[in-house]
Amino acid sequence: MIIDCHGHFTTAPKELQAFRDEQIEGLKHSGQPRTKRSLAITDDQLREAVQPQLKFQNDRGTDVTIFSPRASAMAHHIGDLTTSTHWSEHCNDLIHRVCELFPRNFVGVCQLPQTPGVTPDTSVAELKRCVTELGFVGCNLNPDPSGGHWNAPPLTDRYWYTFYEAMVDLDVPAMVHVSASCNPSFHATGAHYINADTTAFMQFIQADLFKDLPALRMIIPHGGGGVPYHWGRYRGLAQDMKRPLLADMIRNNVFFDTCVYHQAGIDLLTKIVPVDNILFGSEMVGAVRGIDPETGQYYDDTKRYIDAAPTLTAADRHKIFEANARRVYPRINAKL
Amino acid sequence: MIIDCHGHFTTAPKELQAFRDEQIEGLKHSGQPRTKRSLAITDDQLREAVQPQLKFQNDRGTDVTIFSPRASAMAHHIGDLTTSTHWSEHCNDLIHRVCELFPRNFVGVCQLPQTPGVTPDTSVAELKRCVTELGFVGCNLNPDPSGGHWNAPPLTDRYWYTFYEAMVDLDVPAMVHVSASCNPSFHATGAHYINADTTAFMQFIQADLFKDLPALRMIIPHGGGGVPYHWGRYRGLAQDMKRPLLADMIRNNVFFDTCVYHQAGIDLLTKIVPVDNILFGSEMVGAVRGIDPETGQYYDDTKRYIDAAPTLTAADRHKIFEANARRVYPRINAKL
Repeated sequence: MIIDCHGHFTTAPKELQAFRDEQIEGLKHSGQPRTKRSLAITDDQLREAVQPQLKFQNDRGTDVTIFSPRASAMAHHIGDLTTSTHWSEHCNDLIHRVCELFPRNFVGVCQLPQTPGVTPDTSVAELKRCVTELGFVGCNLNPDPSGGHWNAPPLTDRYWYTFYEAMVDLDVPAMVHVSASCNPSFHATGAHYINADTTAFMQFIQADLFKDLPALRMIIPHGGGGVPYHWGRYRGLAQDMKRPLLADMIRNNVFFDTCVYHQAGIDLLTKIVPVDNILFGSEMVGAVRGIDPETGQYYDDTKRYIDAAPTLTAADRHKIFEANARRVYPRINAKL
Repeated sequence: MIIDCHGHFTTAPKELQAFRDEQIEGLKHSGQPRTKRSLAITDDQLREAVQPQLKFQNDRGTDVTIFSPRASAMAHHIGDLTTSTHWSEHCNDLIHRVCELFPRNFVGVCQLPQTPGVTPDTSVAELKRCVTELGFVGCNLNPDPSGGHWNAPPLTDRYWYTFYEAMVDLDVPAMVHVSASCNPSFHATGAHYINADTTAFMQFIQADLFKDLPALRMIIPHGGGGVPYHWGRYRGLAQDMKRPLLADMIRNNVFFDTCVYHQAGIDLLTKIVPVDNILFGSEMVGAVRGIDPETGQYYDDTKRYIDAAPTLTAADRHKIFEANARRVYPRINAKL
């Protein structure tokens, strides 16, 4: 079985965006009541909407996608807690419906109603609802709800601990995933995403988060941002700072996905990072949609790169494709 | 000859920091006159201060270091234009003195008196002074003078063009190099530096900067941040955005140094990025000062990794160690 830990519903029916547009328009009229109307989306529309993902699963030989709302559309910087709550609930409910329609193909991960300047404690209720009522197996946690201004405390700050304790209680991990950038310095998928991954990892090096919460599990997407390429730098910084060895720090707590879109990148990742800490992911249908003229294959068909990575054994590939995901997202075992 | 394009004067005599401390203290007393007093640093003190760099050059078999003030101490976010002007002049004058004392070992690159919210046009005078009077061959340009708040326009914005035109007129390149982070989210050398490198490269993809200024040359340090590891992502994003091929975009304009502190990282860099766009650099004495227990060698002894990189020919190494630097920093030729 091949579990893709990183897929977003980037192809949702247009009625979802219509709601969002209304919501954003409503923010311009402060007196207006804040309504979360229902979305008129049929099951047939949802079946149609996920055909691209189903086709890619079939064509590429993967089985199940850990599926979450479109990351760039979370846009926690827009509006306030009510805005993000309504928007997250709708997005998560649609993911749930897709998972119900295709229970063999999709398992849900939720968006959180984060808002700049508001404690993440306010996201606990939606996490609980999604896990206990909708059967989700994890969440996407935005380390920068401001969308590129980075004014939230580091992920190692106690600011986040109540939320983390809820994750531990529910036995679900978080993927550390930013959303759209409203900072013109940062292209979303080309800079903000990769920067956030790198930033989060360095924050983890600097503090004792995983000593405080040994059951907390974080997935850093996009192959760990710039970290594996700079593994020597991070080993050296940790050493100079008298922090634990990276391999010890990440062992039970930090995992990288394989959303790295060329063979040499995957070769480095799989050579350098312990295989127990790598989860197969493709981010499809996502940031890069084209076909690589150098290979004739989709850039984001990351299974091919794993299949071809020279340092991996069959046992390693089994861990990356399946066993690690079952360990990091234990609630998935009841689903498969 | 081996030219290290990335060295900072991180070991300056304590009198330099004493001036800076006074300057920062002075900012608390707004009525106080802003004086740039002279620094009482002797030539013997400077000779002593650069012994670590000279020893590493000797031990590692490198010849000359393109030498600039300590990057993390530029701290453009502190004070105002007067603060940064006084501070930059002192730092650059010390670099000049080191280069005069050891003309075979060091060639100067300047810090700029950038200040948040102030046009970079105000840095032209110091660039000209350093190049025409002090014999410097380049500059360090901070894309985020705010120190982690990223509120300056992208490097491709016309905001920077007058400064770029001065660079072109003087025929000097810039290394895109941020300084200290005053944002608790970003560790300076472990996150802010790498993020800035990644961010700058994505900005270059998005705009026509090098069409507008075909003679402008930028070095992205720290091995290009997260870019080479994600080369497929960037090729794919450029393709989806109908932007030029990366190899074409960077050819005469964008260069990566080799400040990547492990063999697998350098192997990826030298395999993926055209060798004409790679400049040898070590960042010594810099971000990572320890010895790698896995190799018994300094993490930042990057010459060893280049020597061992399997895809490089002798001609490639000559380009990386010397020829490319002579092309990117043409004023160095009169010095060597």
